[in-house]
Amino acid sequence: MKIITINREFGSGGRELGKKLAEELGFAYYDKEIIDAIAEKSKLDPNYINKAIEDGMWRNYPVTFNNTFAYMPVIETPGTRLISWQSEVLHEIAAKSDCVIVGRAADAILDELHPLKLFIYADMEAKVIRCQERAEEGENLTDREMVRHIKKIDRSRASNHDLVASYRWGDRNGFDLCVNTTSVEIDSVIKPLAEYARAWFK
Amino acid sequence: MKIITINREFGSGGRELGKKLAEELGFAYYDKEIIDAIAEKSKLDPNYINKAIEDGMWRNYPVTFNNTFAYMPVIETPGTRLISWQSEVLHEIAAKSDCVIVGRAADAILDELHPLKLFIYADMEAKVIRCQERAEEGENLTDREMVRHIKKIDRSRASNHDLVASYRWGDRNGFDLCVNTTSVEIDSVIKPLAEYARAWFK
Repeated sequence: MKIITINREFGSGGRELGKKLAEELGFAYYDKEIIDAIAEKSKLDPNYINKAIEDGMWRNYPVTFNNTFAYMPVIETPGTRLISWQSEVLHEIAAKSDCVIVGRAADAILDELHPLKLFIYADMEAKVIRCQERAEEGENLTDREMVRHIKKIDRSRASNHDLVASYRWGDRNGFDLCVNTTSVEIDSVIKPLAEYARAWFK
Repeated sequence: MKIITINREFGSGGRELGKKLAEELGFAYYDKEIIDAIAEKSKLDPNYINKAIEDGMWRNYPVTFNNTFAYMPVIETPGTRLISWQSEVLHEIAAKSDCVIVGRAADAILDELHPLKLFIYADMEAKVIRCQERAEEGENLTDREMVRHIKKIDRSRASNHDLVASYRWGDRNGFDLCVNTTSVEIDSVIKPLAEYARAWFK
């Protein structure tokens, strides 16, 4: 199976890019669906799981290793059980069809399946503009508050990723292609990136 | 004019990638030609200039700023005069035709012309293999010596770059696209990258 994993800075358009890339390639696309699948498996509340995986609730989990998921000691805590369900779900997804998976440390958890690993990022100014444009009604953050919000979410993403990965979130050395969306229309680079992916999987 | 600048880790295949990308796009390609042009302008020996620009001889030049080239105080030293000739040559090249420029801090020096900035890199293991394959006869470095050699050259490139740039060599935030060549054939990604460049310049 061909797997593309996407890690992204909040506000960089990584999710949009992933979704459109999946459409272009005819790959399945997974994002929030992963949370629902873990919820079904674990019988836990999806909101709880989302909070745990995306907002960093399991950061209290004692970490004494800095290696890939495969080498993790199995200690039964709510955190490890969640990682274990997350890993099961991701492997099931990866076995089903070619796919694009956004976030959820899929790049690290599925490392041995050799996914094409993308990292999507942008300048802070561009991210703030994008987030303000997409803010729902009633969500009124000042630009300064938005910067804090973006940084907070990215810190959570980084720490959750780094818990199961042998390389740091956003460190280019861990990724195959790092795409800065500051100066491009996302729509315009979907076809070139799909071409890149096709070449990569050959 | 459309300008693509390429910075690259030694042994990552960045020069080959740049040359082939230029061919694919029908752009002019500049690499060592820059040294010759500076030599002509300055009446200095090309070997001296190459050493100064690539091997970090001007690192002794006193640096008290960390901003783009445009804000550099003009102090007449052999180092600043070289930077000034380098800048002149790069601007002349950029004004002539669409082009791909490899190294020589062109990304920073031509910043205000909005080049598409690529950074090419690879895992150390892949770089050592590539360098050993390309080593000329009689050039017998052990793998360990090769690692040291690669790191030394990259340190020089980084410090020469950072002297005139507002961002660090290899920091993804300073670049538009960072390409890891570890798991791909360079030939296979030339067309996708050319497509990416065309989309980017639209």
